[in-house]
Amino acid sequence: MAGNNSEAVMMRNKQVILKNYINGSPKESDLYVKTDSISLKVEQGTSAVIIKNLYLSCDLYSMSRMKDHNDREGYSSDLPGSAVKGFGVGKVVESGHAELKKEDLVWGLTGWEEYSLITNPESLIKILHTDLPLSYYTGILGISGMTAWAGFYQVCSPKKGEYVFISSAFGAVGQVVGQFAKLFGCYVVGSAGSDEKVELLKNKFGFDDAFNYKEEQDLNAALKRYFPQGIDIYFENVGGKMLDAVLLNMRLRGRIAVCGMVSQYNLDHPDGVHNLMNILDKRIRMEGFVVIDYMSQYSEFLDVAVPSIREGKIDYVEDIVEGLENAAAALVELSSGKSVGKVVIVVARD
Amino acid sequence: MAGNNSEAVMMRNKQVILKNYINGSPKESDLYVKTDSISLKVEQGTSAVIIKNLYLSCDLYSMSRMKDHNDREGYSSDLPGSAVKGFGVGKVVESGHAELKKEDLVWGLTGWEEYSLITNPESLIKILHTDLPLSYYTGILGISGMTAWAGFYQVCSPKKGEYVFISSAFGAVGQVVGQFAKLFGCYVVGSAGSDEKVELLKNKFGFDDAFNYKEEQDLNAALKRYFPQGIDIYFENVGGKMLDAVLLNMRLRGRIAVCGMVSQYNLDHPDGVHNLMNILDKRIRMEGFVVIDYMSQYSEFLDVAVPSIREGKIDYVEDIVEGLENAAAALVELSSGKSVGKVVIVVARD
Repeated sequence: MAGNNSEAVMMRNKQVILKNYINGSPKESDLYVKTDSISLKVEQGTSAVIIKNLYLSCDLYSMSRMKDHNDREGYSSDLPGSAVKGFGVGKVVESGHAELKKEDLVWGLTGWEEYSLITNPESLIKILHTDLPLSYYTGILGISGMTAWAGFYQVCSPKKGEYVFISSAFGAVGQVVGQFAKLFGCYVVGSAGSDEKVELLKNKFGFDDAFNYKEEQDLNAALKRYFPQGIDIYFENVGGKMLDAVLLNMRLRGRIAVCGMVSQYNLDHPDGVHNLMNILDKRIRMEGFVVIDYMSQYSEFLDVAVPSIREGKIDYVEDIVEGLENAAAALVELSSGKSVGKVVIVVARD
Repeated sequence: MAGNNSEAVMMRNKQVILKNYINGSPKESDLYVKTDSISLKVEQGTSAVIIKNLYLSCDLYSMSRMKDHNDREGYSSDLPGSAVKGFGVGKVVESGHAELKKEDLVWGLTGWEEYSLITNPESLIKILHTDLPLSYYTGILGISGMTAWAGFYQVCSPKKGEYVFISSAFGAVGQVVGQFAKLFGCYVVGSAGSDEKVELLKNKFGFDDAFNYKEEQDLNAALKRYFPQGIDIYFENVGGKMLDAVLLNMRLRGRIAVCGMVSQYNLDHPDGVHNLMNILDKRIRMEGFVVIDYMSQYSEFLDVAVPSIREGKIDYVEDIVEGLENAAAALVELSSGKSVGKVVIVVARD
């Protein structure tokens, strides 16, 4: 389908634009909606595709891209004045790529806008299981589910019966890690920032236990209460004081998968972590990872995730936001930690 | 040879006794020499052996055992009033063990005394290559060499051409790691605490470069100078501020093998390490290890180490101390960082 010579169709393209690089937490005024137009025609001789965006993931990744990381290896920044970028689900409307054709459903890195020109279409993943809600590919069947799978199965090297602690356990990744760990046969405790989230972790997601870290004066004492035998696996989303307390409670040959350190992102001076001697004493392996390194195993992940979701063994909550106009407010709410469930922005339903 | 009925021979047994658990650095007065006697007879029906100690390793491990670790998992403490324990080379003088016979040369955990009763003789390793100096089995062919091998080859997963930094590089382990890394084809820089050690690292042990960390105001700047491209592998012996500076200079997918954190051992409040976000950003694997987990691979280590030493490809310096009477002073000197070369206490030469 490389190129085509038909007349270009110009379409309205509503976009969520980044005003300036953000510092710290985003404000609604950091973004604005602009209506532009886009030619639904792919330049001849290129392999680019144009997708119509259906569902967008509102997450920390997009928030991170709004910061100026231009001197930071391994990080990407959006360009002020352009549409925010993030993961989403779309439908191919025009394709110069041999393996993607019109009407194909795909997910991958796209823009917060109605239509996106994707110049590296090899990064898009075709959606084959369409019996599950398409929006799931912004989360549990997309980056956050895959991150949970790679972090737990690949980085943590779990064994049945091990003690697993997940911080920020109600986050899009944490809640899936916990459910994978339960299905695998581990004992799972999570921490979260509100009593409502703690209740859902225990009663909806099947965690063995959970606690509200904001109500704990002494995180070390809290962990000792929930893990009298110690922790084999720590799925790290938080960093700082939580990591310091966890280190004191790790068991011999424990593993720490570092997926995030959200408590540290907006600090000028990151917290000091004092208990690293435990890495030596307990022969701990601590490993940072990003999901992109594991994408070649995406179908292995689906083999676990799809049947578990179909059979209701893994639960999933979405927080649906209608329209690009509401994206900025959703992002601010996410950043405040108030969102319950995966925040999905609906651009169009088909 | 299980048991024997001959008359027990009583032998003088000079011992170096721990007076009380030490706090911080050892003083000569923490130890004293006592002359006892020992029956050179193994109780019938047991597999115990008695060895005549020849060479003892004076090292941080013995120093660590002099502290009270009784509430610390994975750590052993000596008993005040008993002989200090540590690694050494000995000759079997009596054996109840099927695979050890009189005159066999062995190395393993023994006591700072003339004769030791070893009740777990399966922990002793028979010395097969006797063309190299026996004292080497207290160090380069014993625990420190094996630690270097396991840490570098097994934990660091090195690749040819990678950039390797070793702190406390002149230590018994560090200097062997550096030489293994050079033989393997890496670029190797070490830090040490005196100009004399720096010179020896460069000119005797063949490090590509080395620096005196005490003369650096800014460790981050120093590492940037020695590793403009960054560090792939950090062999960690020091911890604290050095680790914090190294984290800033690690490359993508770097590895940190945590062998020791000597700057932290005697602190009531360990230093805070602030740059752990780099573990996430650079997908670093940081792993604590102890050599004991790798002992099943000892013969693999010898396959690398023995020919390299025979052919002069690996250099080794010993600091020989004559007699148990001088052991306490040697330990204090070691603790002060003044020793140059592996400190070996000679108890007897055969």
